[in-house]
Amino acid sequence: MKDLTIYKTIELTGTSVTTIEDAVNAAIHRAHQTVKHLAWFQVIETRGNIEKGKVHHWQVTIKVGFALEGPTKK
Amino acid sequence: MKDLTIYKTIELTGTSVTTIEDAVNAAIHRAHQTVKHLAWFQVIETRGNIEKGKVHHWQVTIKVGFALEGPTKK
Amino acid sequence: MKDLTIYKTIELTGTSVTTIEDAVNAAIHRAHQTVKHLAWFQVIETRGNIEKGKVHHWQVTIKVGFALEGPTKK
Amino acid sequence: MKDLTIYKTIELTGTSVTTIEDAVNAAIHRAHQTVKHLAWFQVIETRGNIEKGKVHHWQVTIKVGFALEGPTKK
Amino acid sequence: MKDLTIYKTIELTGTSVTTIEDAVNAAIHRAHQTVKHLAWFQVIETRGNIEKGKVHHWQVTIKVGFALEGPTKK
Amino acid sequence: MKDLTIYKTIELTGTSVTTIEDAVNAAIHRAHQTVKHLAWFQVIETRGNIEKGKVHHWQVTIKVGFALEGPTKK
Amino acid sequence: MKDLTIYKTIELTGTSVTTIEDAVNAAIHRAHQTVKHLAWFQVIETRGNIEKGKVHHWQVTIKVGFALEGPTKK
Amino acid sequence: MKDLTIYKTIELTGTSVTTIEDAVNAAIHRAHQTVKHLAWFQVIETRGNIEKGKVHHWQVTIKVGFALEGPTKK
Amino acid sequence: MKDLTIYKTIELTGTSVTTIEDAVNAAIHRAHQTVKHLAWFQVIETRGNIEKGKVHHWQVTIKVGFALEGPTKK
Amino acid sequence: MKDLTIYKTIELTGTSVTTIEDAVNAAIHRAHQTVKHLAWFQVIETRGNIEKGKVHHWQVTIKVGFALEGPTKK
Amino acid sequence: MKDLTIYKTIELTGTSVTTIEDAVNAAIHRAHQTVKHLAWFQVIETRGNIEKGKVHHWQVTIKVGFALEGPTKK
Amino acid sequence: MKDLTIYKTIELTGTSVTTIEDAVNAAIHRAHQTVKHLAWFQVIETRGNIEKGKVHHWQVTIKVGFALEGPTKK
Repeated sequence: MKDLTIYKTIELTGTSVTTIEDAVNAAIHRAHQTVKHLAWFQVIETRGNIEKGKVHHWQVTIKVGFALEGPTKK
Repeated sequence: MKDLTIYKTIELTGTSVTTIEDAVNAAIHRAHQTVKHLAWFQVIETRGNIEKGKVHHWQVTIKVGFALEGPTKK
Repeated sequence: MKDLTIYKTIELTGTSVTTIEDAVNAAIHRAHQTVKHLAWFQVIETRGNIEKGKVHHWQVTIKVGFALEGPTKK
Repeated sequence: MKDLTIYKTIELTGTSVTTIEDAVNAAIHRAHQTVKHLAWFQVIETRGNIEKGKVHHWQVTIKVGFALEGPTKK
Repeated sequence: MKDLTIYKTIELTGTSVTTIEDAVNAAIHRAHQTVKHLAWFQVIETRGNIEKGKVHHWQVTIKVGFALEGPTKK
Repeated sequence: MKDLTIYKTIELTGTSVTTIEDAVNAAIHRAHQTVKHLAWFQVIETRGNIEKGKVHHWQVTIKVGFALEGPTKK
Repeated sequence: MKDLTIYKTIELTGTSVTTIEDAVNAAIHRAHQTVKHLAWFQVIETRGNIEKGKVHHWQVTIKVGFALEGPTKK
Repeated sequence: MKDLTIYKTIELTGTSVTTIEDAVNAAIHRAHQTVKHLAWFQVIETRGNIEKGKVHHWQVTIKVGFALEGPTKK
Repeated sequence: MKDLTIYKTIELTGTSVTTIEDAVNAAIHRAHQTVKHLAWFQVIETRGNIEKGKVHHWQVTIKVGFALEGPTKK
Repeated sequence: MKDLTIYKTIELTGTSVTTIEDAVNAAIHRAHQTVKHLAWFQVIETRGNIEKGKVHHWQVTIKVGFALEGPTKK
Repeated sequence: MKDLTIYKTIELTGTSVTTIEDAVNAAIHRAHQTVKHLAWFQVIETRGNIEKGKVHHWQVTIKVGFALEGPTKK
Repeated sequence: MKDLTIYKTIELTGTSVTTIEDAVNAAIHRAHQTVKHLAWFQVIETRGNIEKGKVHHWQVTIKVGFALEGPTKK
């Protein structure tokens, strides 16, 4: 078995009062605080809450992939 | 049977010449004119028309959920 | 068989460092350079790359439909 | 927010003893009696009942989209 | 076009603090107050809220089908 | 446990040189020769072969449901 | 080719006037009368009939897997 | 690597004012004018436009597969 | 970027010998022992083991969402 | 109704300690012992068991199609 | 609009008498003869033909993505 | 609530230059270094990179399930 990277994917929901892009960045920003090597994301679902006939905040769920570091040795 | 809220979901397509977010708000804005208690939405499909090599307008289909009021008495 | 238009659909991925809308327009802009009669698109997938805890660029895959012209005579 | 049309989609099941096309037209014909501005449809499911080893009637479920008129004013 | 029944489907979410079955019945009970000829349902999604490590209430979304009556005459 | 009917579903592909409806009926006709109590069907997939630029035959895959009889006694 | 078990999956719909669990057990109970080695099931669809504003009976479709015995010899 | 055929699949939408089958044939007929070796198709989506409470034309989207010829030599 | 909550979703399978609801609660009960702020769940899959012609235990897979606390500072 | 072949599809799960291909062949090999005219298969799901950090055996579920012979006469 | 790469995706089916991997490589090998800049692929479907109780050949359908070059100038 | 095992599922992507099976084993091998009680996996997606007209490496995404140990006491 050669030394090829293994990735793990987690699912996060970011929220924003402005845009879908901002909600995605909010989730990635938070993940970045505790997970290294974030590599890619995929939008899974775009939802939101409504108040007074307007989108109150966007809730965008993404899958985020990151490289796992090897344990033993390192 | 306890007094818990029942929600109904309808499907709308909003259009916008600018952004996906604007198309969603257009649909919610319209629904708000005739339906009370709009609570949440979910983006179902994002399409659009093309003219002269550019997006002419965005067509975003959403499901919109709202609480049903009880019918007088019962 | 009557003379009704036939459409073909191709799948493209546009990229943008700013927004989903911009990535879609980038793909359509490129298609417009070699394909005539672009008529509509549908967003199939929204992904992206992450660098330093931020979206580095958006990768939006769309299906683009266009009318096929008849092949000279027949 | 510009004055762009908003569409609503409803789901209907038409039935026919003859063809899928006829079942679709039956549903649209009925919707047309109470809803204005029907614009498009999409076939969602094709089912049917069987009697004596033959299709007894076709049940075709469609989504039907129509333009919403503005409420008071606009 | 023969006189075969046309059905309409609506989407409702019932809630219950006890069971999935109860949430479904709550939605159907409510629909029954304003819609005639309810005929069948299909469970679309089963979700719920959590409080203190327990399901607080179940939210079950169903599609409910009912026969449309002809509009006067036909 | 009360005496309520149990149904079994099988998957068949009927073929026809003429129509989708005919291909469905061909499959049901064949099933009827060896299975009793056929009750309903659902179209799963519509495919076909092409020869000389025309549909040569339609291949329509359906799920067919039928009531199971109780095995002697019960 | 080593002697590893092969499984077959069939699709059944059980019905019950009380619960989803009861409908599943009804289908499995029936399958058990004619099929050996039933091993697992998966719920595929939960539907039902409505009468007088209540669920009249639940119709739960499951896939049921069972080990195939070798045909004489092998 | 042995000399086994490679197939390519393209997506087309045929239109017809009469039937689904006719719309499929229209798309295949057009593809046949510029692509050799058309082998099979699969119906992906059946939609249509409505005018005056009737289907105005059917729009059937199919995937069409055809064998690729080797490029000179190989 | 405003201070809006970010949620993480994990996937768990709870088991129960009695009901689907009990299996869901078992999974949530376990998650509650090590994860704070559990907020919602969604049923993803309902399976089970069969022994002697009866459901031996239910295996219900859910997605469970919970609010992420900010890491030091923010 | 012309004499065109009708196909039936069954679902099997083959297992193998070595490869996905071998698991598929195991299922087909077993089906071949009791069913004539096996024609095609489609991989539906690829799963497996893990022991000591390795795949212990592969479980590949396939749909297998075969031509139905006419019952006496026709 | 910045100079970011646009990708196109095509769908191919490769065949092999030996393995799934070989069928994928066969399709990519063929595409490489006429398309530049092949970048990635995704397996869409794994099917095959059966003869004499064995897989006769594997048919693996993949989506293949490649970078589009700019058309002269612009 | 009885003492029945609860499982957690995580999503990993293994890579390999040789086979799909090897990529799956690489992901499981890595998970085994930090997670106990790995029990099963399911293949979710099979992708890969292309270089010089050949698969450069396979990227296989799997869901891996493992039993959760009880947290002290319970």
